[in-house]
Amino acid sequence: MTPELKKLQLRRGEDRRLRVGHLWVFSNEVDVARTPLKDFAPGEAACVVDAGGRPLGTAYVNPASLICARMVSRKPDAPLGPDLLRRRLTDALALRERLIGVPFYRLCFGEGDFLPGLVVDRYGDVAAAQITTAGMEMHRDDIASVLQDMLSLSALLWRNDTASRELEGLPRVVETAFGAVPETVTVEESGARFTAPLASGQKTGWFYDQRCNRIEAARFAQGARVLDAFCYLGSFGVMAARAGAVAVTFLDASRPALDAALANAAANATCETDAVHGDALDTLATLRDEGRRFEVVCIDPPAFIKRRKDVKQGLAAYQRVNELAIDLVADGGVLVTCSCSQHLDRDALRRVLLHAAGRRRTQAQIVFQGHQGPDHPVHPAMPETDYLKCFIARVSRA
Amino acid sequence: MTPELKKLQLRRGEDRRLRVGHLWVFSNEVDVARTPLKDFAPGEAACVVDAGGRPLGTAYVNPASLICARMVSRKPDAPLGPDLLRRRLTDALALRERLIGVPFYRLCFGEGDFLPGLVVDRYGDVAAAQITTAGMEMHRDDIASVLQDMLSLSALLWRNDTASRELEGLPRVVETAFGAVPETVTVEESGARFTAPLASGQKTGWFYDQRCNRIEAARFAQGARVLDAFCYLGSFGVMAARAGAVAVTFLDASRPALDAALANAAANATCETDAVHGDALDTLATLRDEGRRFEVVCIDPPAFIKRRKDVKQGLAAYQRVNELAIDLVADGGVLVTCSCSQHLDRDALRRVLLHAAGRRRTQAQIVFQGHQGPDHPVHPAMPETDYLKCFIARVSRA
Repeated sequence: MTPELKKLQLRRGEDRRLRVGHLWVFSNEVDVARTPLKDFAPGEAACVVDAGGRPLGTAYVNPASLICARMVSRKPDAPLGPDLLRRRLTDALALRERLIGVPFYRLCFGEGDFLPGLVVDRYGDVAAAQITTAGMEMHRDDIASVLQDMLSLSALLWRNDTASRELEGLPRVVETAFGAVPETVTVEESGARFTAPLASGQKTGWFYDQRCNRIEAARFAQGARVLDAFCYLGSFGVMAARAGAVAVTFLDASRPALDAALANAAANATCETDAVHGDALDTLATLRDEGRRFEVVCIDPPAFIKRRKDVKQGLAAYQRVNELAIDLVADGGVLVTCSCSQHLDRDALRRVLLHAAGRRRTQAQIVFQGHQGPDHPVHPAMPETDYLKCFIARVSRA
Repeated sequence: MTPELKKLQLRRGEDRRLRVGHLWVFSNEVDVARTPLKDFAPGEAACVVDAGGRPLGTAYVNPASLICARMVSRKPDAPLGPDLLRRRLTDALALRERLIGVPFYRLCFGEGDFLPGLVVDRYGDVAAAQITTAGMEMHRDDIASVLQDMLSLSALLWRNDTASRELEGLPRVVETAFGAVPETVTVEESGARFTAPLASGQKTGWFYDQRCNRIEAARFAQGARVLDAFCYLGSFGVMAARAGAVAVTFLDASRPALDAALANAAANATCETDAVHGDALDTLATLRDEGRRFEVVCIDPPAFIKRRKDVKQGLAAYQRVNELAIDLVADGGVLVTCSCSQHLDRDALRRVLLHAAGRRRTQAQIVFQGHQGPDHPVHPAMPETDYLKCFIARVSRA
């Protein structure tokens, strides 16, 4: 028999969010007189109970974090461990295997897969994973062995270098869990093959979240001149090239990313390509002033709004980039505009697009609204998990 | 030279919404002292100007309607007529031809295609169209001849029987514009062929707006038992049958719709089918009580909220239907939940889903968020044009 879990008691009324499924407990919601947070070790399991003592489920605790507990089960006695990890990851795998024909996807999307603090990206028999909480960190070795076993992995890389680990008192480090982690992996996506850097790349190497949006953008590529701005490894541009674009221009501030994008394009399509290196705002303005126009302009910038206090400044950056981008769209062409900022909601991005179109004296029609792909499931109680927005708008100079 | 258009002057500050691209003028925004609405005939063209006399564009006017003018161009002297109709419909056609491989689509989606008051659904060489405003009604014959010419139509049906025509002082009537309008048409969609009634069907015969969502729902169909509730002509269920469902149950309150759904299923797939006739709430409860379970449950109800004052009652109806539907989902299966109510926004439907999952003691993950298809473009200044919501959620009984 498992020993009974320590209790973490909430203050009156603070159980409401959890009852509808939210997974986070904030430290000010805990009745610390009855169950002091300091009695818990970072990562320790607890049974979360409401003010009346009724159990709400099992969580892991971190007394040092503002999010002091994250639910791992609605059962009162189901702490994280090999069994629960295996069950959750098996469910996650079943979803991906049903929807994605190749073993290349985000296998686990933290809260969206009911495993708060764990992200796993799969590249065939190699995976890159990231742990962001002390509670998940305690089960690092279990995670590695469940993944190895379940996916017959040859190698696993920990990309535990994200800044948010510091909020949990965890070190930032990139290291091999097991196997020989290759420098680069080949990603198969929608029939294309991309080379992506693993240990040295952005995040966990490849951005699987845009898979569906790349397909939709490519529908407009036949016969088009395409601009792929903030291109990173060239995913939007390469998919467009495969779909019949006559020319693709890649734009990025990183020279290695541009080189990778050009190599990915050459490996996947015969299409005229060129690369523009530099700050996006400057280079977009230069392209505009040179009279360059494109039937498809993709802008997939990094999160301009990282924290809530950056909203005003970040919003202005989205506005500037979208206005510059609209100027580059040929009459009747499309703008593919994206935001991965959690703090910019879908409606705010629609307004950015609207005002950009208005100020540049064009009319826009939204013909596609995209989200993160199905390997990034959204937790319906946690709007925080619903972060990726994409609009494809046809632009007419009436 | 065209004679100069009469002016319709707005009150101070009332030009703001139009400047960012909105197409509607409300009667209380007009400076009626300077430009009395009663001086305009229903449908008459006007140049809309701001309080300072600066032109905002061309509209058509209906003094009898709350929406007293609708913009048709940002140019000051571009009234509706054969030229503008042809230009707008040519743009609309180009978009559909690029994205949809067969001549079956909504060719014109009113404001979303910058032609307020006109909807056209194409079925190969037959079309069904609907006019909802006096301004568009004046150009009825022009519309018919532009469509005939552009699409080489053999027949055009006016489905001018919608209630909203009464707000514009127009009669409600279904009539043939030209040609021999067949009783039914064959709709080709995503490789399937459906028979749909034209003059006697719902709206303009077929609901093209769900095209993409049907494809997404069908991804979960392989090996599944599927429930298609509010099935109308069986579109979700038939697409699921084609994708490998083992059995499809159709549910509708209309006997003729059920018969058509079964016939459409038989014509497209070999799959076990059955039909349940009756009120959705009652029959969903009966299926639940009989212990029936499905790996895929689709609910695509009619708009439960038709007017803003129906929000509370309509929301309760969505909530009941979604709770009943979740009970019918087998563990690990999916709920496909839709709403076409303009007055229920996307976030409200997410909350309906969330609360339904919570109350039925299940966990939900949103794995797909769908919208109306690209042949229903959204006008970014007019959230009114963005009406269709679809979520696919995986349901786990933890």
